[in-house]
Amino acid sequence: MYLERINQPNDIKKIEEKNLPLLAEEIRRFLIDKISTTGGHLASNLGVVELTMALHLAFELPEDKIVWDVGHQAYTHKLLTGRREGFDELRKYGGMSGFPKRRESPCDCFNTGHSSTSISAGLGLVQARELLGGYNKVISVIGDGALTGGMAYEALNNASRLESNFIIVLNDNNMSISENVGGMSTYLSELRTADAYTGLKTGVYNSLSKIPVYGDKMIEQIRKTKSGLKQLIIPGMFFEEMGITYLGPVDGHNVEQMVKIFHEAEKLENGVLVHVITKKGKGYAPAERHPARFHGAEPFDIKTGLPTNKRTKSNWTDVFSTVMRKLGDRDELVVAVTAAMPDGTGLKRFRNMFPDRFFDVGIAEEHAVTFAAGLAAAGLKPVVAVYSSFLQRAYDQILHDVCIQNLHVVFAVDRAGVVGSDGETHQGIFDLSYLSSIPNMTIMAPKNKWELSDMMKFAVNYDRPIALRYPRGTAYDGLREYRHPIEYGKSEILFEESDIALLAVGNMVETALVLRERIKDIGYNCSLVNARFVKPLDEQMVREISADHKLLVTLEENVKSGGFGERVLDLVNSEHLNTSVLITALPDEYVEHGNVDILKRESGIDQETLFKKILSEYVGL
Amino acid sequence: MYLERINQPNDIKKIEEKNLPLLAEEIRRFLIDKISTTGGHLASNLGVVELTMALHLAFELPEDKIVWDVGHQAYTHKLLTGRREGFDELRKYGGMSGFPKRRESPCDCFNTGHSSTSISAGLGLVQARELLGGYNKVISVIGDGALTGGMAYEALNNASRLESNFIIVLNDNNMSISENVGGMSTYLSELRTADAYTGLKTGVYNSLSKIPVYGDKMIEQIRKTKSGLKQLIIPGMFFEEMGITYLGPVDGHNVEQMVKIFHEAEKLENGVLVHVITKKGKGYAPAERHPARFHGAEPFDIKTGLPTNKRTKSNWTDVFSTVMRKLGDRDELVVAVTAAMPDGTGLKRFRNMFPDRFFDVGIAEEHAVTFAAGLAAAGLKPVVAVYSSFLQRAYDQILHDVCIQNLHVVFAVDRAGVVGSDGETHQGIFDLSYLSSIPNMTIMAPKNKWELSDMMKFAVNYDRPIALRYPRGTAYDGLREYRHPIEYGKSEILFEESDIALLAVGNMVETALVLRERIKDIGYNCSLVNARFVKPLDEQMVREISADHKLLVTLEENVKSGGFGERVLDLVNSEHLNTSVLITALPDEYVEHGNVDILKRESGIDQETLFKKILSEYVGL
Repeated sequence: MYLERINQPNDIKKIEEKNLPLLAEEIRRFLIDKISTTGGHLASNLGVVELTMALHLAFELPEDKIVWDVGHQAYTHKLLTGRREGFDELRKYGGMSGFPKRRESPCDCFNTGHSSTSISAGLGLVQARELLGGYNKVISVIGDGALTGGMAYEALNNASRLESNFIIVLNDNNMSISENVGGMSTYLSELRTADAYTGLKTGVYNSLSKIPVYGDKMIEQIRKTKSGLKQLIIPGMFFEEMGITYLGPVDGHNVEQMVKIFHEAEKLENGVLVHVITKKGKGYAPAERHPARFHGAEPFDIKTGLPTNKRTKSNWTDVFSTVMRKLGDRDELVVAVTAAMPDGTGLKRFRNMFPDRFFDVGIAEEHAVTFAAGLAAAGLKPVVAVYSSFLQRAYDQILHDVCIQNLHVVFAVDRAGVVGSDGETHQGIFDLSYLSSIPNMTIMAPKNKWELSDMMKFAVNYDRPIALRYPRGTAYDGLREYRHPIEYGKSEILFEESDIALLAVGNMVETALVLRERIKDIGYNCSLVNARFVKPLDEQMVREISADHKLLVTLEENVKSGGFGERVLDLVNSEHLNTSVLITALPDEYVEHGNVDILKRESGIDQETLFKKILSEYVGL
Repeated sequence: MYLERINQPNDIKKIEEKNLPLLAEEIRRFLIDKISTTGGHLASNLGVVELTMALHLAFELPEDKIVWDVGHQAYTHKLLTGRREGFDELRKYGGMSGFPKRRESPCDCFNTGHSSTSISAGLGLVQARELLGGYNKVISVIGDGALTGGMAYEALNNASRLESNFIIVLNDNNMSISENVGGMSTYLSELRTADAYTGLKTGVYNSLSKIPVYGDKMIEQIRKTKSGLKQLIIPGMFFEEMGITYLGPVDGHNVEQMVKIFHEAEKLENGVLVHVITKKGKGYAPAERHPARFHGAEPFDIKTGLPTNKRTKSNWTDVFSTVMRKLGDRDELVVAVTAAMPDGTGLKRFRNMFPDRFFDVGIAEEHAVTFAAGLAAAGLKPVVAVYSSFLQRAYDQILHDVCIQNLHVVFAVDRAGVVGSDGETHQGIFDLSYLSSIPNMTIMAPKNKWELSDMMKFAVNYDRPIALRYPRGTAYDGLREYRHPIEYGKSEILFEESDIALLAVGNMVETALVLRERIKDIGYNCSLVNARFVKPLDEQMVREISADHKLLVTLEENVKSGGFGERVLDLVNSEHLNTSVLITALPDEYVEHGNVDILKRESGIDQETLFKKILSEYVGL
């Protein structure tokens, strides 16, 4: 029982070297055991057990700084820094986060969540150390998937001029969340398999004999020669050419080798990339076989690897997935773009049916959007499916490349609203605000699963920028009988009465339906409008409903600033409509991790709180 | 007079080859002549005269598609596509844009403005061509500066898997807008000067003799050998390793050579990068000597190169520049970060005084922000100076890396508001919205130049994320006597009366001052409040002023959605304050290029329109 002897940072250094494999084994068992109960990121964490151990052995925490890119792979790091007990409440409200958090431990030096930030942050820590005269080491641990993100390259480009030590550990498992894509991926594969230096000599001699002197007609020949030369692989030349020393590749499950190479790396007075080869899901057969399924896992049965709670209803992503297949079938111009999320966004089925019309661009949201703008400019109908919080990355590209040109790009904004256990970095609670600020943009939100289908069909047949936002989790299948055709900019009036009108966006219609019943139970009349369009606002509806309602209540799962409620209030105010407005939305705060119902309650958008708010507002009028 | 014979696309092909240098000469004279009168981007356009001619000779427009990265270098392209007459009204309201615009010509296939988008857009056009069965060529022209942006790398990574032709022209002048930075820059320098293939053979033989077999203790030796190997330069290996064929370098002022290499390039069935060496400002001595000064030039005297209209007053950037020097002097923890804009942001002087504390990261806003977060996490006080429209690129990094962790990063948001002749892509009219949506963010805007200084001092001594936004152009130097100390979250009441209260943000205080006089002239009382803080709103002030004013008028140079006015209205509404609110802001539209006064009038935020609006609102109450 070596794991029990680790109760604070650096305790791992007291474990005898020969017992380290046993510790690794215990950590793996611990992680599988805990995550099978709580859910969480399993495959990525199993892959970095030895890498994390090696880092903790080679460096001194918390003085030395480890920045974990994305951060969902920091479980072993949490274990080795005295947070074993935290795993019982992992990702639960008030419990331990699934990501590094400065507030949790001094050993978490920088919060992460989104991809490709670690080299930038690490470089900041390095430059600060130089200016402040510190001696600590800085290590950024980045996956090969995250290396497809442009920020990582921007940071590498800047790391090149360093004249002091900065260690970048490339955790290469030939995977991002799904399969990896692009030139960098191919390049890393070559590095990974190369018997580098020994192969070099003969290869070069052979190729050299073919090198022509540069001339007009020799381009093809040069190309072939270069292609030959390329196959020699001078290890890490890509990085070396950026000014970063390349070391490796090294076996990411051999602690001893890694510790040695880290000690070599820390001697250099410049940026160093240590290429570490790991296996995602290592040590747990179901996760090794299906790393994507065990990326962010629900609680599962350890023996079978199957989820403990079988889903009976389809979720929003499934519905999107189905309609995309249909739309792809009906219209050859429909193409799909994802940023490394064919599974998460449900586009995998579209890919399987229409491989030529499917584009996974890597973890590269900026490129995804401008690439889609290019596709649209040439007459295709691209659907860009990205999670709400990741689409934040492409705010400028939506504004500058899609909407100025009024191009027909469809944004399928998944995971919009409170997402739960991933916490602050992943909540999709800003999209209505940032998308609303953009001219020429249209924003829709479906009330139920049939409306998501209808809206997707509408969006694909529209001819300008248009976004649909829908939440994580089970798709609402109530209100089936309400399926008026989608009309541009028009809301759907579900119940028309008087007194109070609930104007609800997307999944808040479900909440509003119950609220309406409760309001009626105590004797008031209550209308319910499904907004459908957040932008443009259905102004005619607001004008009409103002005429015979004393109070309009807006409901949305988004921060208030720049959201739907403010659009309604602004219209009522500027046209002096004779009604009152109560905006209900998320407060101006980040929402932590935990169960969605708890988070909604804490944020004041649960049914109970809303009921009280509405009542008190109406009675006070 | 060859230029006069060019009146539509492809007319250049009718010019005899021997006369092309004369045409180039005429184009240069034309551009210098026109831009000296209208102002505009000179240096970059002089650099690409021959490159543009070669592209137009080698390809067929508008069938073939040229995407101009950033787009300010497309003047010769405009000339060669029949828009010579447009130059008299260049960048004027209603006149020709300084950037490619689809609405201007079918030869402008994709609008640009911000950096590093062209490979993404071009790749979209290529993939669409493949799916739709077209035969057109696609050429993205990107500068070496734009290659420091992460999007360009994301796109290259995706271009690698192409199995059809896509030409990327690297317009390499060893400059972005200012001097270039980073590993990519160094790498390109090496390529540029390399006598590549002839040098290769001997070099490789010499280095090979030093290559050791990989072993534990040999890292330093390997490193030296690799560094030796690197100097051989297998041309373009960086790109080749990404899966892109590299051709060049070729002289960017030799039309014949370029046409040849373009014809070679179009034969390849994959992504090809053609490395073209140009000289910024070519052919006009003052621009060759001072390319940064002639980047975006005001009208100038052709003989001397000096601006025609001498500035007598300092502009906002100058004021920022001065206070940064002072702050840097007083506090060693203050550091500065810019994304390729040491001149534009005024940080050049800070750089000269404190070179170690100044970081130009290249055209890499995302990295700039997260890098600053790293600096702040380690205890420094980074000031990130970026133009409002470019900071859009870093929305996610501000939200995710700075504000979740509540890190003390100061954002100096220059060019906020309507900027004028650069047009839609450069207007800084969204920052109040996108920054307001972010929890933990503080946003300030100064009324005059002294307040900008005071606010910078305040910001640097604050301890959480904080942004200052200030406009382009002459700094307001009125209201000098009003200089109450900055207090967190507190506005400044300049004139306290009754009836109407003007609540103005930043430079709108100047407008409001005149408005107030006019309102008083016709017999109403009018208060004037300088908001100072857009976030958090000074709620106490709003409550108090509501008590004795019938109308609150908010004024801001930002779109309405998510801006300052909506914060005020929301408070008045939610607390049932007994007053009316009139929000004045920019409409939900892009603002074109032209004179700032005209643009403000067209957008309804000029003094005359505002006066009428306020009066009609007040009288109607």
